[in-house]
Amino acid sequence: MSTASFRTDHDLLGDRDIPADAYWGVHTLRAVENFPITAQPLSTNAHLVRGLAAVKLAAARTNQELGLLDAVRADAIAEACQEILDGKLHDQFIVDVIQGGAGTSSNMNANEVIANRALEILGHEKGDYSRLHPNDHVNLSQSTNDVYPTAVRVATILSVRGLLDALETLEEAFAGKAAEFRTVVKMGRTQLQDAVPMTLGQEFGTYAVTVGEDRLRLAEAGLLIHEINLGATAIGTGLNAPVGYSAAACRHLAGVTGLPLVTSVDLIEATQDVGAFVHLSGVLKRVAVKLSKICNDLRLLSSGPRAGLGEINLPAVQSGSSIMPGKINPVVPEVVSQVAYEVVGNDVTISMAAESGQLQLNAFEPIIVHSLDKSISHLENACRTLTDRCVRGITANTQRLRLSVEQSIGLVTALNPHLGYAAATAIAQEALATGRGVAELVLEHGLLSGDRLEELLRPERLANLTN
Amino acid sequence: MSTASFRTDHDLLGDRDIPADAYWGVHTLRAVENFPITAQPLSTNAHLVRGLAAVKLAAARTNQELGLLDAVRADAIAEACQEILDGKLHDQFIVDVIQGGAGTSSNMNANEVIANRALEILGHEKGDYSRLHPNDHVNLSQSTNDVYPTAVRVATILSVRGLLDALETLEEAFAGKAAEFRTVVKMGRTQLQDAVPMTLGQEFGTYAVTVGEDRLRLAEAGLLIHEINLGATAIGTGLNAPVGYSAAACRHLAGVTGLPLVTSVDLIEATQDVGAFVHLSGVLKRVAVKLSKICNDLRLLSSGPRAGLGEINLPAVQSGSSIMPGKINPVVPEVVSQVAYEVVGNDVTISMAAESGQLQLNAFEPIIVHSLDKSISHLENACRTLTDRCVRGITANTQRLRLSVEQSIGLVTALNPHLGYAAATAIAQEALATGRGVAELVLEHGLLSGDRLEELLRPERLANLTN
Amino acid sequence: MSTASFRTDHDLLGDRDIPADAYWGVHTLRAVENFPITAQPLSTNAHLVRGLAAVKLAAARTNQELGLLDAVRADAIAEACQEILDGKLHDQFIVDVIQGGAGTSSNMNANEVIANRALEILGHEKGDYSRLHPNDHVNLSQSTNDVYPTAVRVATILSVRGLLDALETLEEAFAGKAAEFRTVVKMGRTQLQDAVPMTLGQEFGTYAVTVGEDRLRLAEAGLLIHEINLGATAIGTGLNAPVGYSAAACRHLAGVTGLPLVTSVDLIEATQDVGAFVHLSGVLKRVAVKLSKICNDLRLLSSGPRAGLGEINLPAVQSGSSIMPGKINPVVPEVVSQVAYEVVGNDVTISMAAESGQLQLNAFEPIIVHSLDKSISHLENACRTLTDRCVRGITANTQRLRLSVEQSIGLVTALNPHLGYAAATAIAQEALATGRGVAELVLEHGLLSGDRLEELLRPERLANLTN
Amino acid sequence: MSTASFRTDHDLLGDRDIPADAYWGVHTLRAVENFPITAQPLSTNAHLVRGLAAVKLAAARTNQELGLLDAVRADAIAEACQEILDGKLHDQFIVDVIQGGAGTSSNMNANEVIANRALEILGHEKGDYSRLHPNDHVNLSQSTNDVYPTAVRVATILSVRGLLDALETLEEAFAGKAAEFRTVVKMGRTQLQDAVPMTLGQEFGTYAVTVGEDRLRLAEAGLLIHEINLGATAIGTGLNAPVGYSAAACRHLAGVTGLPLVTSVDLIEATQDVGAFVHLSGVLKRVAVKLSKICNDLRLLSSGPRAGLGEINLPAVQSGSSIMPGKINPVVPEVVSQVAYEVVGNDVTISMAAESGQLQLNAFEPIIVHSLDKSISHLENACRTLTDRCVRGITANTQRLRLSVEQSIGLVTALNPHLGYAAATAIAQEALATGRGVAELVLEHGLLSGDRLEELLRPERLANLTN
Repeated sequence: MSTASFRTDHDLLGDRDIPADAYWGVHTLRAVENFPITAQPLSTNAHLVRGLAAVKLAAARTNQELGLLDAVRADAIAEACQEILDGKLHDQFIVDVIQGGAGTSSNMNANEVIANRALEILGHEKGDYSRLHPNDHVNLSQSTNDVYPTAVRVATILSVRGLLDALETLEEAFAGKAAEFRTVVKMGRTQLQDAVPMTLGQEFGTYAVTVGEDRLRLAEAGLLIHEINLGATAIGTGLNAPVGYSAAACRHLAGVTGLPLVTSVDLIEATQDVGAFVHLSGVLKRVAVKLSKICNDLRLLSSGPRAGLGEINLPAVQSGSSIMPGKINPVVPEVVSQVAYEVVGNDVTISMAAESGQLQLNAFEPIIVHSLDKSISHLENACRTLTDRCVRGITANTQRLRLSVEQSIGLVTALNPHLGYAAATAIAQEALATGRGVAELVLEHGLLSGDRLEELLRPERLANLTN
Repeated sequence: MSTASFRTDHDLLGDRDIPADAYWGVHTLRAVENFPITAQPLSTNAHLVRGLAAVKLAAARTNQELGLLDAVRADAIAEACQEILDGKLHDQFIVDVIQGGAGTSSNMNANEVIANRALEILGHEKGDYSRLHPNDHVNLSQSTNDVYPTAVRVATILSVRGLLDALETLEEAFAGKAAEFRTVVKMGRTQLQDAVPMTLGQEFGTYAVTVGEDRLRLAEAGLLIHEINLGATAIGTGLNAPVGYSAAACRHLAGVTGLPLVTSVDLIEATQDVGAFVHLSGVLKRVAVKLSKICNDLRLLSSGPRAGLGEINLPAVQSGSSIMPGKINPVVPEVVSQVAYEVVGNDVTISMAAESGQLQLNAFEPIIVHSLDKSISHLENACRTLTDRCVRGITANTQRLRLSVEQSIGLVTALNPHLGYAAATAIAQEALATGRGVAELVLEHGLLSGDRLEELLRPERLANLTN
Repeated sequence: MSTASFRTDHDLLGDRDIPADAYWGVHTLRAVENFPITAQPLSTNAHLVRGLAAVKLAAARTNQELGLLDAVRADAIAEACQEILDGKLHDQFIVDVIQGGAGTSSNMNANEVIANRALEILGHEKGDYSRLHPNDHVNLSQSTNDVYPTAVRVATILSVRGLLDALETLEEAFAGKAAEFRTVVKMGRTQLQDAVPMTLGQEFGTYAVTVGEDRLRLAEAGLLIHEINLGATAIGTGLNAPVGYSAAACRHLAGVTGLPLVTSVDLIEATQDVGAFVHLSGVLKRVAVKLSKICNDLRLLSSGPRAGLGEINLPAVQSGSSIMPGKINPVVPEVVSQVAYEVVGNDVTISMAAESGQLQLNAFEPIIVHSLDKSISHLENACRTLTDRCVRGITANTQRLRLSVEQSIGLVTALNPHLGYAAATAIAQEALATGRGVAELVLEHGLLSGDRLEELLRPERLANLTN
Repeated sequence: MSTASFRTDHDLLGDRDIPADAYWGVHTLRAVENFPITAQPLSTNAHLVRGLAAVKLAAARTNQELGLLDAVRADAIAEACQEILDGKLHDQFIVDVIQGGAGTSSNMNANEVIANRALEILGHEKGDYSRLHPNDHVNLSQSTNDVYPTAVRVATILSVRGLLDALETLEEAFAGKAAEFRTVVKMGRTQLQDAVPMTLGQEFGTYAVTVGEDRLRLAEAGLLIHEINLGATAIGTGLNAPVGYSAAACRHLAGVTGLPLVTSVDLIEATQDVGAFVHLSGVLKRVAVKLSKICNDLRLLSSGPRAGLGEINLPAVQSGSSIMPGKINPVVPEVVSQVAYEVVGNDVTISMAAESGQLQLNAFEPIIVHSLDKSISHLENACRTLTDRCVRGITANTQRLRLSVEQSIGLVTALNPHLGYAAATAIAQEALATGRGVAELVLEHGLLSGDRLEELLRPERLANLTN
């Protein structure tokens, strides 16, 4: 191979050829070789790439402020980081998302890319580390063990915001349907058995309330990850980090990201602790299972068109079958439930990885990060497609719903206080045995007048609507 | 307290008073104090208590055979063990089912109970260990690390047999219903949407096949736990176990239990390995999720009575509601699904405990054993109540089922090859738009003769029955 | 059997003999027969039995206040409930903890026991329901679907309080050890490899911080379950509940329990929602995995006594082995980790049960309740034994710890800023190759003066202690 | 946009522009829009793409054989499929790996790509479906519900083979180390406490045995997925599939793939059943947790270099730290454990998806397939890097290991039968109290002669090596 197309990088294991146009270096190369697991490079987690760049930018400015880094180098590093924040150079983050080493390889990938881009900005050759070094300058006053968890927090805050927004939109869509279906009377069901009447608006209203409540809980959990450990270095004792570094770095990072970050009170604990991620994942799981419950309901209510409940219609978004003409399937709720199952699985993965941390560090943070990233981004995507391609287009089969109430034996529950339990039970049994309607039998047996019955069975009254 | 009602036992931590009528001793007492976790004593796992007694009996006879234990002591130990096998003294196994120490406390509980009962049999006082000692005689040539896993295997084989029997009974019940419903035509559904016709007999037939297949897989997994490590002692090297002990102990245990046990080829691996339990739990999880799927179907098919699918009726086994007269709920399928969820959770517990084993031993075997015991016994109980209190009493709403086929748009799929895809689609769309039937429209449009149509839509043909 | 020893109860399925001295009735009997799953009766969850009694007491007083129930019956019901709150009659709660029917059988068990005890109080025969009826009087204005979730919340609040207290005690024990070990210098480790020095006090301090943080998170999650749905009746529409019932019942229940309960804003949503339980379980899982991480550390740090790290000593609480003289094992941390694995498994069970809820109710709440009860109570018990029988008695091998720092290559990191990276690396490599100490080599190479070196390697400086 | 660069495709929802060079069509486009979940297209699962092509090829030849498809079309379809089998056109499989619709979109993606490529081969324009239609010709006699599960089985068989090979290589590497370390004596440990001596060869031998056993179990589970349901069409009744299709299609697919495939006996059950996948995933979980246990051991045994066990050395494969000079971390075992945690999580996902199947189909098969694909391929990759970059380069610190035995108190266990339990315990206690060695004390107390002692403590004897 031509010497022109490669440069030589060196680490404690020896020399390696690096493609001349690569911004990454030997540490990144070793990691790529050591962790050929998923074929998913770090660049697929754009929030994390940006998080790393934000931390490096804040560190450079802090080091400059503390007199540890000259302005020329600091500016070059900052410019390189800003480019990454602007979406450039992401293709240079090539380490596998699942990696050994507690994030060291992600940190080194960032150090190398930033150093080499900064060298270019300064008019030097890539790899000319004597002028600007990935470790000595880009990683100055830092350790993977404070950089990586901090970058992950920044990334996660950003991705949680996306999910919160998607949940809010979904909540609004359900609330819209609740208003639209406000007077559509239907049978409520418990344990899949006919219970007592309600409205379809009430049913969709519960979905809005559920999603809204989950959103609040997720926002609370998101607050927990605003606590960072920059300046802790290797194990949280801050060994070799200059006095004042931790506070200044947090201030700079808050400035770069616009996020209200704070420094943990106990940095040793913070360095080894992944509790906030376990907590967040637990709340994501809550969001997931409730979202799936709602989607299961949507599939059930739209079952049919004839041999099912047939209460609502989901919008057709694709053909359902190559063999059955005209079949339309609830594919969007189906995909949402699948994402939910994935999120529950991810939560188990995260729990195991958290439990396996030892002493001053959790070496398994990359799988926690990867799993969280999937859970959050897939849930966001699932919520958006559910909102746009399903909920907003749902229509009600009002006539069929009303009929199910009128024919229902459950009506007898509403008449219970007026007929007495014994008479009510007798009517229910006769209705079930004969297939006839409750109202009809009540009138036939002269138990109530027609007017009284009509009043008692008014939809608004049955569903306890306030007017 | 009166000195008469206590005896004094001694261990390396010092002296302790033991109730005079207790067969357990100081090691058991320490364990009870150290592990006050679940309030469930070891005696709640009767199979395991029996398993321990069987191992101790086999060990005593082996030690006697090898000249390590005199006939008097061996006979007394054997008689005490036999009593436990006969169901006596189980209330003396008081250590918590969740316990630290890899089963040492369970083993010591057994050693102490057997020693003290044997002392009684020999006409001595309980606690007179100079004559017959829990460690030196009852535990002779043994270690917790070979005794406990072996006893657990014996126990698990027995409980798996119970589950296999329950599954077979359930399979037969489903097969019986499949025969009963052989000609009951209904709509098949995919993704909860009407698909093509089938029979209710075919539907119940799949449940029989599913349960039968799970039974076979479970029986296979059960074979894996016939491999024992008696004679391995502490870490599998067999240190201090006499030559020939391992083979003889296995032979004696096979004799005592009637089980075709074999000794592992690599005793060091066998001593630390819990793979067979993880495997078994994985298969139990398979059984559980499929059982729950079937129960979900039963609840769905019996939903109603009016505003649901109403295809089948589950037998009423209790009142469904204190407020809604006449309501009957599918409580038996509901309890089965709950057990299934428990089994999936137990499987995660077992996986984590297995992963956490270190070096020459898995210290977390008690939680594996407890979780397995719950999974197996609860599944057995769930299968039996499902069979007896639900499946056997299921009836079909034949008329409603037939009607759902006749009114179905899915019929058009069957006519597809005869009408062509374009005409079939047009009929489907008209049926959906007008609410009319496919057959009616086909006749009206003169696409097929009445006789031909009747032939094509014969239930037997639609459901692909062989006659 | 003698007619004297039985009474006859009746439900929609027919007549059944009930033991004359039983307070439970026919509904309870049916449930016991339908759900023979775990052999664990409801009475094993004492908090839940009390929760049911508290709800029934509050309902009786509310019904009395609203003029629906006369004072005589109300007083008798209240007295019966108070007896249960005082710990009596718990043995009458015999329904299995895992049961179909969304808690109906637990509710009916309570209704029957309270009715029959109230009948006795009023001087009537048990079973003389015409005078005081389980449904018409004890269950008046109620439904399982508001009673059961409310009772569960009351029970869970009480059990969470116990766990919070146990966590606080554990936190204090760790904080005590942190103070005790404040100046004990040791090597910190990342990824199980020697990193940089710290103190054992810092290490135990992180455990205190971790437990304290978990406690706060758990307390927050506990607040979520103070929201109840009393008065919602069957599906949350409040059908047949009198005006004002909901608010008054909540007020009375708050009075009975002393808990700051509030009524949910959307009762329909509240009736079907188990999100707060999923959330709570997620936080319990967080507590569990971090507790297990700490216990793993304790086991690792106390490994040995000779061929392990041997940094600390756990108190001996029982003999470790019947075959290996003098062996002491870390049995208490082991049992805590096992409980943690159980809690993670329970969380999966709860997630699945939550996801499976359908439409207006979650039929699988009993397994959620049972799993939560196990998670909370076992965690509390585990924390208490960990505090009392392990943490408080931990001692440090101070000399060995100091030696490990002095012999460590990690010291070179502290000298890095003073020697330069290149020289530091050379010293590290020479130390590793020759087995010699870093300090020794630094002096030999004349890189630093003895005084300077001593100053730089002061334990307080290395561990970044503030004085 | 230029008309030249697009063609127009049509489905029941209307017309859509398709890029002129795209082989996929309107069904694929709808699916891409409906399922924007993971950014991972189907092409990332190359085995599945090949599986779909193999099934389509087999179906075309079967249809030709049965006279349903002319040779010209059949040849063109076969040629297009063969190209995909040869690795071409994979970039045309663009549907998300997580998708609603039970695989319909994957099937339609394949139908469209194959149809358009076949049209090209026949000299027609892409999109000229009147000549060769994705549904009428490529999907002839098929349904997603038999095509997709069959293709998944073919794909999974292939990927399992890769994992089996990787496990075999790993097993050999461990066996090689077992032979290399055959005489290296060390202390065995139970519960992290020093137990009795063994050899490092025995320790690595257990890893070989464990991996070998897992391999056998995985091979068995792999056999279960050789059962296919081709010809079942929509729900397994085979409606509209010609007589003889099922058998012929299986024969052709076996020919195309070289796999010993068989047709399920009950096609209705087979169409809805995902039990074999749940089973396989359970076995993968077993493989994962045991692999992680081994990796945990490797990390523990190589802990240090000074303040750890330091028994073995893992090869250095990358720098461990940017702040700590010379630090090397066990990054390869760390990545393997992370994959293991992912696999356990995937197993939960699969269990939930399997449990959620309803009636005649499991609509959630895509997430099952995606999770299985990740579990298998990541495990294969993890095994290969573990073998190549870790196990093969492990070395032993023989001197340190021998010393740990000689200094061990556990030696006393070996002397137990010769000294008696009381004397042995006394020696153990004195050794622990004084820090002196067992052998030394035995000689000092005159309990055994030097020669006898040496004989009893011979490494070969202690570790129970056969010569």
